[in-house]
Amino acid sequence: MTRLESKFAELGAENAPGQEVRQGTGQLSAVMRGDVIPGTPVDFSHGDVDAFAPTPGAREAWEAGYEAGGAQAYTEYRGAAAIRERLARRLAGFTGAPVDPVDELILTPGTQGALFLALGALVDHGTRVAIIEPDYFANRKLVRFFGGQILPVALRYRDAETGPDLDALEAAFRDGAEVFVFSNPNNPTGVVYSQDAITRIAERAARYGVTVIVDQLYSRLLYRGESYTHLRAQPQRPDNLITIMGPSKTESLSGFRLGVAFGSAHLVDRMEKLQAIVSLRAAGYNQAVLSTWFDEPDGWMEDRIAQHEAIRDDLLAVFRGAGLPVATPQAGSYLFPELPGLAVPPETFVRLLRVQAGVTVTPGSEFAPQTASSIRLNFSQDHKAAVAAAKRIVEMVARYRA
Amino acid sequence: MTRLESKFAELGAENAPGQEVRQGTGQLSAVMRGDVIPGTPVDFSHGDVDAFAPTPGAREAWEAGYEAGGAQAYTEYRGAAAIRERLARRLAGFTGAPVDPVDELILTPGTQGALFLALGALVDHGTRVAIIEPDYFANRKLVRFFGGQILPVALRYRDAETGPDLDALEAAFRDGAEVFVFSNPNNPTGVVYSQDAITRIAERAARYGVTVIVDQLYSRLLYRGESYTHLRAQPQRPDNLITIMGPSKTESLSGFRLGVAFGSAHLVDRMEKLQAIVSLRAAGYNQAVLSTWFDEPDGWMEDRIAQHEAIRDDLLAVFRGAGLPVATPQAGSYLFPELPGLAVPPETFVRLLRVQAGVTVTPGSEFAPQTASSIRLNFSQDHKAAVAAAKRIVEMVARYRA
Repeated sequence: MTRLESKFAELGAENAPGQEVRQGTGQLSAVMRGDVIPGTPVDFSHGDVDAFAPTPGAREAWEAGYEAGGAQAYTEYRGAAAIRERLARRLAGFTGAPVDPVDELILTPGTQGALFLALGALVDHGTRVAIIEPDYFANRKLVRFFGGQILPVALRYRDAETGPDLDALEAAFRDGAEVFVFSNPNNPTGVVYSQDAITRIAERAARYGVTVIVDQLYSRLLYRGESYTHLRAQPQRPDNLITIMGPSKTESLSGFRLGVAFGSAHLVDRMEKLQAIVSLRAAGYNQAVLSTWFDEPDGWMEDRIAQHEAIRDDLLAVFRGAGLPVATPQAGSYLFPELPGLAVPPETFVRLLRVQAGVTVTPGSEFAPQTASSIRLNFSQDHKAAVAAAKRIVEMVARYRA
Repeated sequence: MTRLESKFAELGAENAPGQEVRQGTGQLSAVMRGDVIPGTPVDFSHGDVDAFAPTPGAREAWEAGYEAGGAQAYTEYRGAAAIRERLARRLAGFTGAPVDPVDELILTPGTQGALFLALGALVDHGTRVAIIEPDYFANRKLVRFFGGQILPVALRYRDAETGPDLDALEAAFRDGAEVFVFSNPNNPTGVVYSQDAITRIAERAARYGVTVIVDQLYSRLLYRGESYTHLRAQPQRPDNLITIMGPSKTESLSGFRLGVAFGSAHLVDRMEKLQAIVSLRAAGYNQAVLSTWFDEPDGWMEDRIAQHEAIRDDLLAVFRGAGLPVATPQAGSYLFPELPGLAVPPETFVRLLRVQAGVTVTPGSEFAPQTASSIRLNFSQDHKAAVAAAKRIVEMVARYRA
């Protein structure tokens, strides 16, 4: 195997969300137990934008962008100046710290695009990067793609007390981590980092000179009684800090591929240089849809959160009723239940779920090597269909229990 | 300077097309001669999609995509299957060789996205890559970003006989080039490679086992009397071959960020794995606009070509009338005139053009180190405004002549 071959072998995307359609079903019949379980198919690998529609006005905003013509088609690589101007104010208001629209903000093709650019701006051969386990699967893949070295840090999410192992994090910083990337709320568990954890992360990153990338994709979808701490608003914070957000999830605008990164000007500058050779810019007309972001109709966000909370609670009841351990997500729309010992490997079970139960989930091995026996569900779905599908998962677990 | 700092210093985007708005004008006044020359500003750094509007039906196709909802928002990373199916047939018809829609085609965020993925799939630290000089500026930047080594090969474009130096190309192959990337029609000169050149490139790449990436972005905008040879349709061709196209230029769909790459299945597979961590997919709703591609109304393309040919001829007359050498583009909408010795460095002159004459062009140093005294114009512009702007360039050249 050449170096490039092994590099791409590590990038395996066949279990990545949305790619299930490319999987063969060849060898499954040999291990299959029982028949198909009927029911409406549910694809928990991503949110259902038919069940939760895009922000009101998104289409009209796009059309206004299209009608604006050339000025909207060809923006600066970092995005249209007027859109950045408006967004910077809103992001500063939301996160509690100023954002300079000229030098500290870049629009990207989705939050994925922002993560890619941020890690591409910071990770080279041998760069040590502290990574939470479990966390969004692309974090690990990106670090490996750029030739970096992963220093894993455990996240507690099963116990009453949740959060990152701060001693392990400090050890990683002492061991030469130059970058720390993490999602908060955590993907896949829905854990929100406490104020204490964020304060300590900020303070230690500052002390050790570590650059921090915090992916806050789900920070608006916060359930009742929870509070969120923005790292960038901490009085003591690292000099080099990039915050990432986007309207793909809670706002259901994923079909537009829009994200933002904001923070240290020299890093945003590098990200733009990289964007210039990666895809030039977030699609011009689509950028105009960001005018709807943080400007949703009154009550719309509260309503959306309440609907997700209701689905969350019903799914938790289904899984817990069947004895499957699952943490209560404090934010976002992911559930990460743990399966018991099964007669087939977890990734085979995931394929069987799709073939026999019409249920698509993402295997836990995508998020950390040690969470292979969990599955991730994005429960931003039709409520009734999601509950019925969760019951089919439980039935399949019973069928394949070791 | 750290390795990352120097890597990003090489990626300098401040002279890249579209980024001129970020340039300071601070030191220009010290060297400025004469006043502002009045006239309609023209930005030759890219085509004007207000002068040449997007393909008819593009907006309606987008709206149909948006209305399709979730299925169009979340496609496979390589793009929606039904769209690939239809496009594969059209691309096979256009290029004269079959394309498998399942395994040999990927939709990308613009042609830039396709180039990035193709080079990312093939270039690692130390990989030797043959590059034409001059050629599209991102080719060189991408190779350097991935740590590859550039083996330059000259393109003749000033003489009656044009084309790549095939002996130098074979020498690069002998010297261990693993990849050869080039644009045909050539950006920035508009040279179309002859059938003989393409046949020889295909045959030698096959013999030396070199992977070829051919960027055919402008291959539909071919002027009267010219003919185009598709490398992928040659009987003897390299085993590893990726062809890149997109509707951003001739079809004025750049605001949608759409491109395609097609060819060797294992390379398309790598490109999709990379796409999964770069930006997931070309924006879902935008993909639907590809239904208009290669299906334009009767006579629309012929008309568009004729209008560009008329602008080309008028601009050639302006530059040649002033004694500036410029090759006749055989295809595409770029002109690459050569300036005489000036009293200011070429990149200063380019800034003065913008400030004093309202004319934006791209400095020739972006395309090869040795073409710094040329400028590139994308003449897909309002006809009258473009001719007037070319006359202002000539006036500025006279003003700053050494």
